[in-house]
Amino acid sequence: MSTMTGFDVSGVRIGGGRPIIIAGPCTVESEEQTLAVARAVKRSGAKILRGGAFKPRTSPYSFQGLGEEGLKILSAAKAETGLLVQTEVMDASQIDLVCKHADILQIGTRNMMNYSLLKAIGETRFPVMLKRGFMSKVDEFLLAAEYITKGGNEQLFLCERGIRTFETGTRFTLDLSAVPIIKKMSQLPIVVDPSHATGRADLILPMSLAALAAGADGIMVEVHPQPKKAMCDGLQSLTIETFGDYMTRIRAMTAFLLQQNEGN
Amino acid sequence: MSTMTGFDVSGVRIGGGRPIIIAGPCTVESEEQTLAVARAVKRSGAKILRGGAFKPRTSPYSFQGLGEEGLKILSAAKAETGLLVQTEVMDASQIDLVCKHADILQIGTRNMMNYSLLKAIGETRFPVMLKRGFMSKVDEFLLAAEYITKGGNEQLFLCERGIRTFETGTRFTLDLSAVPIIKKMSQLPIVVDPSHATGRADLILPMSLAALAAGADGIMVEVHPQPKKAMCDGLQSLTIETFGDYMTRIRAMTAFLLQQNEGN
Amino acid sequence: MSTMTGFDVSGVRIGGGRPIIIAGPCTVESEEQTLAVARAVKRSGAKILRGGAFKPRTSPYSFQGLGEEGLKILSAAKAETGLLVQTEVMDASQIDLVCKHADILQIGTRNMMNYSLLKAIGETRFPVMLKRGFMSKVDEFLLAAEYITKGGNEQLFLCERGIRTFETGTRFTLDLSAVPIIKKMSQLPIVVDPSHATGRADLILPMSLAALAAGADGIMVEVHPQPKKAMCDGLQSLTIETFGDYMTRIRAMTAFLLQQNEGN
Amino acid sequence: MSTMTGFDVSGVRIGGGRPIIIAGPCTVESEEQTLAVARAVKRSGAKILRGGAFKPRTSPYSFQGLGEEGLKILSAAKAETGLLVQTEVMDASQIDLVCKHADILQIGTRNMMNYSLLKAIGETRFPVMLKRGFMSKVDEFLLAAEYITKGGNEQLFLCERGIRTFETGTRFTLDLSAVPIIKKMSQLPIVVDPSHATGRADLILPMSLAALAAGADGIMVEVHPQPKKAMCDGLQSLTIETFGDYMTRIRAMTAFLLQQNEGN
Repeated sequence: MSTMTGFDVSGVRIGGGRPIIIAGPCTVESEEQTLAVARAVKRSGAKILRGGAFKPRTSPYSFQGLGEEGLKILSAAKAETGLLVQTEVMDASQIDLVCKHADILQIGTRNMMNYSLLKAIGETRFPVMLKRGFMSKVDEFLLAAEYITKGGNEQLFLCERGIRTFETGTRFTLDLSAVPIIKKMSQLPIVVDPSHATGRADLILPMSLAALAAGADGIMVEVHPQPKKAMCDGLQSLTIETFGDYMTRIRAMTAFLLQQNEGN
Repeated sequence: MSTMTGFDVSGVRIGGGRPIIIAGPCTVESEEQTLAVARAVKRSGAKILRGGAFKPRTSPYSFQGLGEEGLKILSAAKAETGLLVQTEVMDASQIDLVCKHADILQIGTRNMMNYSLLKAIGETRFPVMLKRGFMSKVDEFLLAAEYITKGGNEQLFLCERGIRTFETGTRFTLDLSAVPIIKKMSQLPIVVDPSHATGRADLILPMSLAALAAGADGIMVEVHPQPKKAMCDGLQSLTIETFGDYMTRIRAMTAFLLQQNEGN
Repeated sequence: MSTMTGFDVSGVRIGGGRPIIIAGPCTVESEEQTLAVARAVKRSGAKILRGGAFKPRTSPYSFQGLGEEGLKILSAAKAETGLLVQTEVMDASQIDLVCKHADILQIGTRNMMNYSLLKAIGETRFPVMLKRGFMSKVDEFLLAAEYITKGGNEQLFLCERGIRTFETGTRFTLDLSAVPIIKKMSQLPIVVDPSHATGRADLILPMSLAALAAGADGIMVEVHPQPKKAMCDGLQSLTIETFGDYMTRIRAMTAFLLQQNEGN
Repeated sequence: MSTMTGFDVSGVRIGGGRPIIIAGPCTVESEEQTLAVARAVKRSGAKILRGGAFKPRTSPYSFQGLGEEGLKILSAAKAETGLLVQTEVMDASQIDLVCKHADILQIGTRNMMNYSLLKAIGETRFPVMLKRGFMSKVDEFLLAAEYITKGGNEQLFLCERGIRTFETGTRFTLDLSAVPIIKKMSQLPIVVDPSHATGRADLILPMSLAALAAGADGIMVEVHPQPKKAMCDGLQSLTIETFGDYMTRIRAMTAFLLQQNEGN
């Protein structure tokens, strides 16, 4: 077990106290879309912008992301807003390119067992968020994390994003029990992604509040200017308008929980 | 869809506002054990005592419950403390007997698809809590509930208690997304049972807080004087000592959430 | 472990050698439909007619079976064809009635953990087939079987009928590994139900052949004169026409396997 | 849908008729071990030797394979026996090296959604076997296959190797229904791996026979000289001795099925 209790990324603290909000579109579609979201994220007080440039898609015929062009759009959003940028890397050969534009790398659920990628990122000294494989047990998730920390990269945090079960009312089943279990078994910060877990915009707020109450170190949430026109995963995105109200509720819960923790 | 927004059981409101706590031992083992817990439950301010007299066990060689003797012990605990008593009924032939001693019937997870039992309880006018089958989709859970309401029994509330998945770090996977989904699809109150869902005492508090934050109408929790000596499910029970601290945290969260809801 | 290696029901051997075929409609809908299937079953050389009179349905608004009228139709089919009749019993209170008409009782997947029913059937001396709960591990299945044998009823055989998984291309996932595992752990005969497991008529033949090759003691298969008009589960039924060809293939595989076993 | 009905690899036909057997140790541990197995495989009449040099392991502290040294051992076994060699490639950067030694590439279950790797292999013209992700639906499996065929590589066959379910009596649940479904939806050959699916040597024979009866184009099976001393997955390996008897039974089933198919 590591002794980490959170770490700083350019002045933003991940883990060890105040929960963070990572918000943005599932996919970078255009500069206009990305900047509109980035400004809303900035306005709300969140500190990290997420957006995908390289997209792992189940079908080879689905939109695969804008690639380097998408990374440049994220860089532009960062330059304008000062937000940190987090984006997915799908392959070791992309690491150098992505690191030019991003502050935090993301390893997606489909690559949690891509051990070649985990090892390559373990060799870097770049902050990284590892998503739980949607068919992985918590034990396996923590072992995948060790592929990264074993390489010497300790700027790592985890993300619970739902597991595959027989239930079809949600896209996956959000396993919030994983949060307190991981807090006991590891010093790694863990955030929760209710957008991908549930696939339903109407569940994002209640499951975000639940995640924070369960002890999560933050939330990753999708925001899109026009969810119905999104190229990917629109049904699970907040709009720019609803995101403001959402953040009000999140801040209230955060304040309550911080006060409770001080009392203990 | 029914228009129920909660109902009263002998002056205790279930649903429609302030969350309820249902606490007690998994199994009624003796008068001494049951009264010790009942007094602690009463002291904490909870209103409903749960305890099993008829136990559905996977193995025919496991302890099957005290039966009628267990019901009498529950009656004695009720007489002393004034708590309402909730206990499981496994078969239509037990309904009359159980109703003599209990205020609320419980249908266990293994009987959620025992349609003969559901119909028989639908014919009564007795309050009942229906647990989700651990392999049932939310849709199927709500259809099982309709077997009861179709018979005219509308004093029904539901209980999310975890579903079976591949994860082995917890006994089942608590599916908290079911709470906001059921709140949208139905007027039936829904409580959450983190003891059976996780099988781990150390997860009861975080998952209870999460359940309330997700909108649950209450929590059902196991309390035992000596969990290590319990005849059933000791590992997932709070002790009488930890139950007091637990209730302090639950009350704080409840107060916070009630205040938030008033603001909206 | 029991020392049973199959048993006779009115001269039909279940287990211990030649696989049996149990065929018929999911639900008894009318005398005409049932007799048409019964005649085809008889013609094909199969020995047992199955058909449901009491139907456990997920929704209370679905057709619940013809009840006693359905049992009488089964009796009529038996009188005409000489086939044995197998039908489901959902509740202890139905046992006496069903036993008047049936040769073999069936406990459905939704009642595998209805321990009151298992105990009641264990008290009888009536042949019974217990279906695996679609949420049950093999261990739990065998423990459920012990509720019956513990009561002294040893005329019991089992049925693998698919488990619930994340795969949606089939209705359930047929777990054929359960067949050789159960053959090792128990002396109870085990048959396989590819109709309910897959929910697809086009998979019945290959999965039946596979089940026999894996060592199953028989197959239970749905046959309906007009599957598209069936009141229940038509998509997973063979027609009377395809059933003839099906039986030709089954007989060839059976003959091959019997010859192999003699050689060993 | 492609119009492929099997293809030749150096004179060995995969798909389109006679089932193939791919046999060998899970992991190449030494030249002695590998040659002992290779000779047994050759003797039995099987045509393809499998063995892992690069091993994707859940824990970074587990043995990760011999790497290039392992590939050279496979080359030596091929030189002596004339068997074709099949081995796993974990990363696009390994393709050139592995292709120097192997006749058939293998993509493991943990990499089925590693789209970068799929695309890279789609660009080659090298025979490849794609294993089903243990968390993947059949639809997703076929879409992953299209990442390869879309690149122009049509020398592709598939492997069903079990999916993750709640059942713990086997390592995974072998989903044999996938075989006839894939035969209907695709022209790609599909083989079955009962060793990894069940994790139990005693289930390999019955599940291999079942797979062939369900229509599989072949079997991949683990063979190890001393399973109890294996560095990986020994419990699911046949010994060299039992492999001979196994092949006798497989040949008999194959002959029976070929004769049946001719008759139809």
